[in-house]
Amino acid sequence: MTNSRREFLRRSAALTGGTLAAAGTARAAPLPVPQANKEPGRGIDETAYGMPSKYEEHVKRRRTDVFKNRQNLSDWSMTPLQHQPGIITPNGLIFERHHAGTPDIDPKTHRLAIHGMVKQPLSFAMDDLTRYPSVSRFHFHECSGNGLTDWLKPASATVQQTHGLLSGVLWTGVPASILMQEAGVDPKGAWVLFEGADSSAHARSIPLEKVMDDTIIAYAMNGEALRPENGYPVRVVIPGWEGNVSVKWLRRIKVGDQPWHLRSETARYTDPMPEGKWRQFSMVMECKSVITSPSGGQKLKGPGFYEITGLAWSGTGKIRAVDVSVDGGRNWREAVLEEPIMDKCLTRFKVGWNWNGSPATLMSRAVDSTGYVQPSVKGLASVRAIMGFVQHHNAIQPWAVSANGEVKNVIGQA
Amino acid sequence: MTNSRREFLRRSAALTGGTLAAAGTARAAPLPVPQANKEPGRGIDETAYGMPSKYEEHVKRRRTDVFKNRQNLSDWSMTPLQHQPGIITPNGLIFERHHAGTPDIDPKTHRLAIHGMVKQPLSFAMDDLTRYPSVSRFHFHECSGNGLTDWLKPASATVQQTHGLLSGVLWTGVPASILMQEAGVDPKGAWVLFEGADSSAHARSIPLEKVMDDTIIAYAMNGEALRPENGYPVRVVIPGWEGNVSVKWLRRIKVGDQPWHLRSETARYTDPMPEGKWRQFSMVMECKSVITSPSGGQKLKGPGFYEITGLAWSGTGKIRAVDVSVDGGRNWREAVLEEPIMDKCLTRFKVGWNWNGSPATLMSRAVDSTGYVQPSVKGLASVRAIMGFVQHHNAIQPWAVSANGEVKNVIGQA
Repeated sequence: MTNSRREFLRRSAALTGGTLAAAGTARAAPLPVPQANKEPGRGIDETAYGMPSKYEEHVKRRRTDVFKNRQNLSDWSMTPLQHQPGIITPNGLIFERHHAGTPDIDPKTHRLAIHGMVKQPLSFAMDDLTRYPSVSRFHFHECSGNGLTDWLKPASATVQQTHGLLSGVLWTGVPASILMQEAGVDPKGAWVLFEGADSSAHARSIPLEKVMDDTIIAYAMNGEALRPENGYPVRVVIPGWEGNVSVKWLRRIKVGDQPWHLRSETARYTDPMPEGKWRQFSMVMECKSVITSPSGGQKLKGPGFYEITGLAWSGTGKIRAVDVSVDGGRNWREAVLEEPIMDKCLTRFKVGWNWNGSPATLMSRAVDSTGYVQPSVKGLASVRAIMGFVQHHNAIQPWAVSANGEVKNVIGQA
Repeated sequence: MTNSRREFLRRSAALTGGTLAAAGTARAAPLPVPQANKEPGRGIDETAYGMPSKYEEHVKRRRTDVFKNRQNLSDWSMTPLQHQPGIITPNGLIFERHHAGTPDIDPKTHRLAIHGMVKQPLSFAMDDLTRYPSVSRFHFHECSGNGLTDWLKPASATVQQTHGLLSGVLWTGVPASILMQEAGVDPKGAWVLFEGADSSAHARSIPLEKVMDDTIIAYAMNGEALRPENGYPVRVVIPGWEGNVSVKWLRRIKVGDQPWHLRSETARYTDPMPEGKWRQFSMVMECKSVITSPSGGQKLKGPGFYEITGLAWSGTGKIRAVDVSVDGGRNWREAVLEEPIMDKCLTRFKVGWNWNGSPATLMSRAVDSTGYVQPSVKGLASVRAIMGFVQHHNAIQPWAVSANGEVKNVIGQA
């Protein structure tokens, strides 16, 4: 970590030199005593759960402005990535997605069953689950529909709207493999059904191999119990795969010898292919990145130093590199990746930029540990049918900076 | 990470075998359809900041029961470590400590000044600071007074009360070195004063070397703006050092050629030594660990498998190893450390335990990357004067499990 940090500082210094002072610092500073120094502040309220400052009320989850759901049962809200530094999303801002609202589940009465092709069906109370060996792992969490409003032309203004179905979480729970081993999977078992206790009974079929590899039966996130909208009291976490397979409010796990071909696997969460067929079970979220600052809706204060920063992630491994362009993809410069760089986890990238005040187009392009390079929309169109509102949009996102400093989404135009 | 996880699973499996089933699972499970499956849940409220489930209301910051502050201005509240998995504390549960309440500071009018022995005094608005190159780093944060009620005999029941002036945070801000370089430190500059905008004007003197090494001028924590009680809108973070030096609500940074010998450096935050003198400027938090589960106030449900887990940290580097004893320190077993293991950061350790129902005394002992071994109280007493309510208690914490499963604090008795 130290080497990487030094390298970053070295690069920052090399990039910026005296121009850092152009960032708006006032000279020969007066030192007025602020009002806060003159009167006692508020005391501790131990009956309350801590909350953000009232001056941060604009930092909220939002619905998309493009698809505003009217009946409010199958709905989603998005993470304000333009306000999130680092690689962790606070629990109060993690994106929401549900098909029939957030259920109110009492952990004392909730049960999780394992059944189907197993030697010994099992049923767990929450108190049972938390006695098992646990793991805590950092992973990105992304909805397969992230970006679906903005394939061919801009529909959304901000990175919250284009990419906010994305969060970074430290998940804690029991490795699914431990519970499966205890139930004793039939040698013919090959697929696993996860079903939720919500009123849509959302369910997905997952290959047994992935379940035994790194799947977590999770009861906590970022150091506390799951939030209700994120699956309280227990959910699946299937690292690196589209968010909806990590079934929330988990009620049962059933082992079978083939997938169930649920509505969520035929009518939904499928991808149109160039030859007119639709691809099922494309659950891996491929390598992707986005610049979160400067990003759409922000306004630069004038020429000078800016840090271009964003997030990169891959469902198939670690991030190996991120390249950044400020001229719409003609030239690229390698960004600094901030440690720790973890498997199937958000990685923060940064590069210094001395903006000269001319129009610019910012882009980032990530490469993962398998060598896969984040594609352009054009590149994706050669292997998929890009028809508008479809899933699995991992193409490069361009942001245009105009001479007056306004930053705009220019997907399909750059 | 994968190797470490495999190793963990291998050890878990080896430890537990068939006894995992003793964790209370019911056989031949019925599959009743829960009420939540039958009625729509609540919709999304995008005007709200997300909150924990109502069933988790017991998970709160608490004041200590031993020192209950009556006037509520110089006060603290503690993190519920017994409910925190992983190495991150959610912002709503990070411990609080202030000397005159939490001020209400408007970031639009707040200014941070650098002055004293510098070539060019500077003053920054928050908008200026966030334009500089940023870093995000995971660090533990611990009050020097953590544990001061429980040196020689138990005064506190739970790990929240004994160790809850401890949190794990991903801090984001500007490296202090960048701002200091811009101000231009006088070659004779050797110490740096940090002063807060609260009504106690809390301040500390810090050696310039530490400021230039890894100190952060932080404006965000765990992916969002600092919370008011944690220094909003800007504070210092001095990694690995006692919490109070990381001055909150930061108003000015002054460079001098010697320390200021403030009240917080003479009357407070000093350590009595065996020869009767008091040690000043002992700001490093030395290597320490504590078992968070099973821990004081919990009750085991009966013989069988339990995961013993806890936290280890060191202000001088990374955690190299943690040993766990279940027999009051006669025998020790090496725990598994969960990745990522980071510099001056909480590290989670785990070891499986098949409790046979007999009385047991649980202890953990951490070793850091310098080779320093966490001491017993007796060990500390050979280099410090242990007089009761003093600072820097990093000794081994014993928890006794009685035959009925009750877990109690037995500091000084084991």
